[in-house]
Amino acid sequence: MCDACVIESVKKNMLSRRNLFRAAAAGAATAAVAATGALSPALAAAPTGATDLTHELYEEFPTYFGPQQFFREQKFNFKEHTFNLFELRYSEHTGTHLDAPLHFSADGLSVAEIPVENLVVPLVIIDIRERAAADPDAQLTPDDIKVWTAANGDIPDNACVALNSGWSQHLGTDKFRNADADGKMHFPGFHAEAVEALLQTKAAGIAVDTLSLDYGLSPDFAAHNIWLPAGRWGLEAIANLDNLPTKGATLVVGAPKIRGGTGGPSRVIALV
Amino acid sequence: MCDACVIESVKKNMLSRRNLFRAAAAGAATAAVAATGALSPALAAAPTGATDLTHELYEEFPTYFGPQQFFREQKFNFKEHTFNLFELRYSEHTGTHLDAPLHFSADGLSVAEIPVENLVVPLVIIDIRERAAADPDAQLTPDDIKVWTAANGDIPDNACVALNSGWSQHLGTDKFRNADADGKMHFPGFHAEAVEALLQTKAAGIAVDTLSLDYGLSPDFAAHNIWLPAGRWGLEAIANLDNLPTKGATLVVGAPKIRGGTGGPSRVIALV
Ligand SMILES: [Zn+2]
Ligand SMILES: [Zn+2]
Repeated sequence: MCDACVIESVKKNMLSRRNLFRAAAAGAATAAVAATGALSPALAAAPTGATDLTHELYEEFPTYFGPQQFFREQKFNFKEHTFNLFELRYSEHTGTHLDAPLHFSADGLSVAEIPVENLVVPLVIIDIRERAAADPDAQLTPDDIKVWTAANGDIPDNACVALNSGWSQHLGTDKFRNADADGKMHFPGFHAEAVEALLQTKAAGIAVDTLSLDYGLSPDFAAHNIWLPAGRWGLEAIANLDNLPTKGATLVVGAPKIRGGTGGPSRVIALV
Repeated sequence: MCDACVIESVKKNMLSRRNLFRAAAAGAATAAVAATGALSPALAAAPTGATDLTHELYEEFPTYFGPQQFFREQKFNFKEHTFNLFELRYSEHTGTHLDAPLHFSADGLSVAEIPVENLVVPLVIIDIRERAAADPDAQLTPDDIKVWTAANGDIPDNACVALNSGWSQHLGTDKFRNADADGKMHFPGFHAEAVEALLQTKAAGIAVDTLSLDYGLSPDFAAHNIWLPAGRWGLEAIANLDNLPTKGATLVVGAPKIRGGTGGPSRVIALV
């Protein structure tokens, strides 16, 4: 599907859901009750089917390098100043965040330069949860892509190809970084050959539910070094892939529009 | 639209109509008629794309208080470390950003607590550009809302009601803050009574293309103080309203999901 069509299709789905709810609400009590059961009253006529793929960001959010990367200082407080306001300080690569091409290149696109059309994209989910549960060093390989395309067709143009390794459930425990006695981390990621294969498609981005596009043991950021300098983007530490379809959702990547930025904490929302 | 998309779009329409018909059939006959009537005009407007309502954020982005609020330090650079990475430091209320209820209340919703369903919302645009061009102290009043609803119907539930004052074109010039010799600012905003009126609707948020929900001369943040403690959100310094329809677009507010945050720079995207 072309970009314009993806957006059109999302809008039509949302519209139909809204109209559907109105019809139900105006109709039989049972229909109204069923619809209300799915939506809180305040959201009655809201577009439904938005899934938040963003983890909360907070001081202790685990980091790739280990030490804390997010800090804040309260500058105004309600009691004294009648409003609350914090100053934040953090590394761009903290929490659920985007890697722009500039992160791993001398002069690639900054996060502000990624066209907005490449931030509203078809979501493809490749599930390796079973393998990752047995082996934390599991990687998404070209074979996994082939299995997906055999069942679902070609990777859509402009897609985000997301790895569901089941790792987001480990956030808040040591298993998320899963560092061994030598400090080496063990979590899943994209194999360099899978990223090479995806470069042959028109995918806009890739996404992982772990701390890095590369698996934890990677000595050389191979996936980063292949993917980002090619002008594509990555998303790290995304959440909530389990409840989404393997294809058909649209991802809206709320990346920060920071001039010259190499990425940053992003609000990532899937519309189904 | 590409051929495949036309087909897909037609299929989806048929699917939605079938679902709609089922819901309506389960309800009263009047609901079926009303629902069918509501559906056709909505589908008549052909969606065209994603519009970015976000300004770039950079060191010199103008601020409400005056002094610089955005800073960065490069921690890694490509030449030396094979990748680029910045640490950022900024006030939450900088650039195109969201005000959460907690910004103006002791214990309102933080930016992370706003339900994702309230961040994917119908966009209403109220245009006061002509008045604002003649008078920088112009405010959006209850009369402006009445004019809009007379032409377009009720404010949709869960909507974001956006003020188009034409002010975003002044970014990069002194006119954006428009401070006089006494330091008092002159730019448009929401009148307190307009915000009171919108509290009677189920709007989720309001948005301005200026530095504050309140007009620049406001001595007391009246609009902030009425709107935010009521559990609604605000967007400040949004861009690109000129090219959007007065109703019918869907706004996706990519607000940062910072635990306990009072708001923050957001990626704001409209789907039309
Ligand atoms: Zn990163
Ligand atoms: Zn603010």
